[in-house]
Amino acid sequence: MSDGSDKQIYYSDYLKLDELLQCQELESARRGKVAHDEMLFIVIHQAYELWFKQIIWELSAVHRLFDSSTVSEPSVGEAVHHLERITEIQKVLVQQIDVLETMTPLDFLDFRDALIPASGFQSVQFRLVENMLGLRPQDRLTYGSGSYLSRLQEKHRKLLHESESRPSLFDLVDEWLSRTPFLDFGEFNFWSAYRQAVDKMLTQDKDSIESNPLLSDENKEVQLKALRGTRTEFDSLFDRELYDRLVADGKRRLSYNAFTAALLINLYRNQPILHLPFRMLTLLMDIDELFARWRHRHALMVSRMIGSKIGTGGSSGHNYLSKVAEHNRVFTDLFNLSTLYIPRSELPELPKAVVEKMGFSLG
Amino acid sequence: MSDGSDKQIYYSDYLKLDELLQCQELESARRGKVAHDEMLFIVIHQAYELWFKQIIWELSAVHRLFDSSTVSEPSVGEAVHHLERITEIQKVLVQQIDVLETMTPLDFLDFRDALIPASGFQSVQFRLVENMLGLRPQDRLTYGSGSYLSRLQEKHRKLLHESESRPSLFDLVDEWLSRTPFLDFGEFNFWSAYRQAVDKMLTQDKDSIESNPLLSDENKEVQLKALRGTRTEFDSLFDRELYDRLVADGKRRLSYNAFTAALLINLYRNQPILHLPFRMLTLLMDIDELFARWRHRHALMVSRMIGSKIGTGGSSGHNYLSKVAEHNRVFTDLFNLSTLYIPRSELPELPKAVVEKMGFSLG
Amino acid sequence: MSDGSDKQIYYSDYLKLDELLQCQELESARRGKVAHDEMLFIVIHQAYELWFKQIIWELSAVHRLFDSSTVSEPSVGEAVHHLERITEIQKVLVQQIDVLETMTPLDFLDFRDALIPASGFQSVQFRLVENMLGLRPQDRLTYGSGSYLSRLQEKHRKLLHESESRPSLFDLVDEWLSRTPFLDFGEFNFWSAYRQAVDKMLTQDKDSIESNPLLSDENKEVQLKALRGTRTEFDSLFDRELYDRLVADGKRRLSYNAFTAALLINLYRNQPILHLPFRMLTLLMDIDELFARWRHRHALMVSRMIGSKIGTGGSSGHNYLSKVAEHNRVFTDLFNLSTLYIPRSELPELPKAVVEKMGFSLG
Amino acid sequence: MSDGSDKQIYYSDYLKLDELLQCQELESARRGKVAHDEMLFIVIHQAYELWFKQIIWELSAVHRLFDSSTVSEPSVGEAVHHLERITEIQKVLVQQIDVLETMTPLDFLDFRDALIPASGFQSVQFRLVENMLGLRPQDRLTYGSGSYLSRLQEKHRKLLHESESRPSLFDLVDEWLSRTPFLDFGEFNFWSAYRQAVDKMLTQDKDSIESNPLLSDENKEVQLKALRGTRTEFDSLFDRELYDRLVADGKRRLSYNAFTAALLINLYRNQPILHLPFRMLTLLMDIDELFARWRHRHALMVSRMIGSKIGTGGSSGHNYLSKVAEHNRVFTDLFNLSTLYIPRSELPELPKAVVEKMGFSLG
Repeated sequence: MSDGSDKQIYYSDYLKLDELLQCQELESARRGKVAHDEMLFIVIHQAYELWFKQIIWELSAVHRLFDSSTVSEPSVGEAVHHLERITEIQKVLVQQIDVLETMTPLDFLDFRDALIPASGFQSVQFRLVENMLGLRPQDRLTYGSGSYLSRLQEKHRKLLHESESRPSLFDLVDEWLSRTPFLDFGEFNFWSAYRQAVDKMLTQDKDSIESNPLLSDENKEVQLKALRGTRTEFDSLFDRELYDRLVADGKRRLSYNAFTAALLINLYRNQPILHLPFRMLTLLMDIDELFARWRHRHALMVSRMIGSKIGTGGSSGHNYLSKVAEHNRVFTDLFNLSTLYIPRSELPELPKAVVEKMGFSLG
Repeated sequence: MSDGSDKQIYYSDYLKLDELLQCQELESARRGKVAHDEMLFIVIHQAYELWFKQIIWELSAVHRLFDSSTVSEPSVGEAVHHLERITEIQKVLVQQIDVLETMTPLDFLDFRDALIPASGFQSVQFRLVENMLGLRPQDRLTYGSGSYLSRLQEKHRKLLHESESRPSLFDLVDEWLSRTPFLDFGEFNFWSAYRQAVDKMLTQDKDSIESNPLLSDENKEVQLKALRGTRTEFDSLFDRELYDRLVADGKRRLSYNAFTAALLINLYRNQPILHLPFRMLTLLMDIDELFARWRHRHALMVSRMIGSKIGTGGSSGHNYLSKVAEHNRVFTDLFNLSTLYIPRSELPELPKAVVEKMGFSLG
Repeated sequence: MSDGSDKQIYYSDYLKLDELLQCQELESARRGKVAHDEMLFIVIHQAYELWFKQIIWELSAVHRLFDSSTVSEPSVGEAVHHLERITEIQKVLVQQIDVLETMTPLDFLDFRDALIPASGFQSVQFRLVENMLGLRPQDRLTYGSGSYLSRLQEKHRKLLHESESRPSLFDLVDEWLSRTPFLDFGEFNFWSAYRQAVDKMLTQDKDSIESNPLLSDENKEVQLKALRGTRTEFDSLFDRELYDRLVADGKRRLSYNAFTAALLINLYRNQPILHLPFRMLTLLMDIDELFARWRHRHALMVSRMIGSKIGTGGSSGHNYLSKVAEHNRVFTDLFNLSTLYIPRSELPELPKAVVEKMGFSLG
Repeated sequence: MSDGSDKQIYYSDYLKLDELLQCQELESARRGKVAHDEMLFIVIHQAYELWFKQIIWELSAVHRLFDSSTVSEPSVGEAVHHLERITEIQKVLVQQIDVLETMTPLDFLDFRDALIPASGFQSVQFRLVENMLGLRPQDRLTYGSGSYLSRLQEKHRKLLHESESRPSLFDLVDEWLSRTPFLDFGEFNFWSAYRQAVDKMLTQDKDSIESNPLLSDENKEVQLKALRGTRTEFDSLFDRELYDRLVADGKRRLSYNAFTAALLINLYRNQPILHLPFRMLTLLMDIDELFARWRHRHALMVSRMIGSKIGTGGSSGHNYLSKVAEHNRVFTDLFNLSTLYIPRSELPELPKAVVEKMGFSLG
């Protein structure tokens, strides 16, 4: 931080520390008996909320950059920078759980009852982050019968409800990928070439299974069945109708154009023009994964804190949270892409004209 | 490390670096085309195996300390030291996944086929760690129909099979807890006092639910049902038969005496004599949790690496691994203890004579 | 966190989120042009201040426990628990630097001028933490000519000045160690036995140097000189006057009794009664080390952020900070203890009566 | 890892585990008394050496990509990928220190003497990493009088000596930067525009110091002197002779062309063509910083382990190591670049033709 002489701004005024450091009011103290660990409980949740605010700040910037019918290259660069920062913040969120774990169950019991029915489920900012990323109400594993909004105050419910109706990062990325110009290969029929390579690969696999003298008939059948499953997955790449059926079944969420663009970006990531898009997609997976990690750590911590205590809503806290950690993910399509890769040596070579278009003017 | 002059031992001889650094032989190179990332794949798995060896070394020391009908206090202190080291190693195991994640699915495809059918499931040392901790064959989520031993070489199968028949850390801890002398309260009937406190707490809870004007009848019923569940859990504390039924149902694994001793250790952890036992139990949970974390990270990583590819054994790699992360735990009883805590203010006060016995001679 | 029904407390009210989330006011916005990264700058410093508040909360609890002429065993246990929490918080402080490093120097330049002359040096809470630990004004590497108080507001200066006059954790630990009862060995003259063991060890070392045919005369002289230095260090253990001279020279800070007690605790840490004291001393070093780590990371970060820019006070920001990282340490005596260890096999065996006194009544 | 059926490759054969896990031979066991912690000491150093091998593998790949008179864009992308992996490995190296810190000084003393005179200074692979990065013999803080090679075996000395004579990563990056085509701005005289902006900025700074009524004359003089220093630094940007004098004085190491190219890359990093070069430079600093962090952690750890014990070479282990942590850095020029930034609002706007050249063909 800067240092200087006798002018205006003063560190504690700039950071509004007088206000900030008065926001920690122990409920246990109000009730007459300070529970030492309640301070930690408040401070850590406030730290979480500060970081949520920062994540929203970064996500908003990304939304602004992508909420346009043309996303310039420098914009992708800037978005990547914002998303990278979000992943670093998420690592702090995970690290903070180590601090919370210094609170033992008995310490927690000292003030737990005073908090009922307040709940971390009521963090409006965190719900907003989820909505901004693109988690839809139907993606949420709901707790009991109610919606995720049911225990919120009216103003917060409204705020979140509105956020649901705005395009999410998922939507914006889908649109950006769909219109990506590098799907145009001119004369070169990429998908026909890719299909040939896939066919060759799968036929070889089939042969090697069938001709393997060490495999029992039963084992052969298992492996051949798996192979047929893989082929079906690939088929959807070459047949938009098949693909749209997967979407209807909830097995894909990205549009066909976006999904295939994302595949290409991954396959040819070393082409200069694809480098930033590749990092963008990678970071979206990182963000999904880091929230999954955070939820998983949180679920483990709750399991230590309250055991198998049955929550007042009728469901086991830890089991519920542990399922949420597996569920509430947004960019699963990107994770599933790797099912559809083929070895680099089998990749169709791009025509020189296409490669040139993917390079720099200066090249 | 030490430094010195011109005498005998030389760093690279001491560490056998000539041998160690010749253990990386790329299968892809043998087949004529080096896949750059295969080196990482080998090195990271070898680093894992080195650390597994160290964990086994530490666990063996703990086994030796606890495999006795009397475990001295200094022994508990030493065991705690070994277990702490294991948790620090586990953090390195988790951190290493960040390195593995720099390998993209396409990079992996470059040499994946060359490895079939070798598999991480075949790490004998890791299976040994699990057995030494106390994971039983029936606790394992098996992959397909086979046992966890099925794909191993005969000598390894034998080694693991033998390890199953030796007392595990779980067994040793159970015995140690069962014979713990601080369960003897002399004249003071601890359990009767604890039961009274529990009754009082649960009755208050029931009243506050029933008299709450804001709760709908439906909500009340849900909460009262939950409360009855909690009471049943508590009942097993005071009734060995009930407890043994939980054991028979697979809901508890520790013996009654060990379970109740563990509860006491947690409740009165500030008594000098209980401090080390408390840390011991905490570390056992830490170890369980850190392996759960590692498995969870590993499952997420595999999900990025192979997508929803169906394994040749007929099951989805990622889904399977993600379930294992939830399952293969040993000390769940210790996690569940927190269900049975009551607030510190309600804890029966121990008689002075008991407290004195829990202190130091010097006191 | 708990969950419940429709009663009183609401998450965002409990955490005062309306107030908390209004404390981020961008100076760049006030001046007409939002600098995106200023939000991060504010949020991260506020997160630091929240955690400083928590550290002060924990340190105050330790002070209360130790500010007494008798510190009970359970009190040491509680203190250990508080100190452990502080180290986990410190790890978050370090992790946060990774987030700050996502701000590039150019991003910082966008709002840096607006902050002059506010400075991180003005964090009153951090100075308070240092004072509570026991950093004395004379230990501080001052920046230019002024005291560390010179750029603070009057009220803050006063607050810190007062904290200097209260006993620090260092002082309290010194007193506690000085009066420790386990220094009393009854008839057994521990120090005479230790001195004999040291003599034997050093004489052997001398012989092995002098008789080494591979060492040049020059090398021998260097090693013998080093050995004489080691002997002098040991001598101060057995001669309080010598020791006090080291204190006068600023080479030791703990009193003679406290220093030797700390040595004994380390040497015989496996005796039950010494276990908690050993952990206490270890944690004090951990805290020192983690702040050193944090300062070092901070210095590296500043070096990237402002390069070799010369601060307005006339000194290079990075060089200065990097020296502070080496300097501002409190418990260096504890680090230096290891100079005075001898191999376990050479340790005087404690008489049975002494060992018994160090065990539990129950034993 | 793959899984499969009954074919050839077996996990433990593939990883040569039989050989790998026989490389841990305790010197203390050979001497008749197993020191438990020596196993950790061996395993952790072997893990370090495995990772060093991987770092060398990645660095070699980067060298191959850059050892050419034309480095293609995809090559920069690949190099970035290798360097990212190195940073993730370095984080594991740092994390491993937490494991080593579970060894207490007394535990170390149990086998320390057996190791003399072997020393971590003798890690040939680590020295090789340093040389490959570009650490020159004259950059090394030597320990006592000897060269860093003096305590090595002949074959290792030769290997390292040879590595000194090959172009280092520093050299290759210097050449690549020097020939970068985006230094050509056509008609636009960038440096003249930049100089004007710098002049304006520094003149404003001077005015604001001189006209500040709150500054004492003494303070003013200090600040004006600092400003003159800053101006001198800037001057070297516009005057190659001045710059070369800095090189001669050891204050700069990069050639003039490379240094100014690096500055431009940082200033206009959002231009598509500069994105990868910007990440490349950032990663080089990351690698420098992570080794500094590792050395610093290592120095702190040694300080706990041996205190102020004077090494047999006549120098204090900890003090020496702590200085090395500050010294042995390669890419300090890149850190110093930030001294020469000006606020983004003052940056010369690049002409449209230049910007177009920095974009993609497709644009």
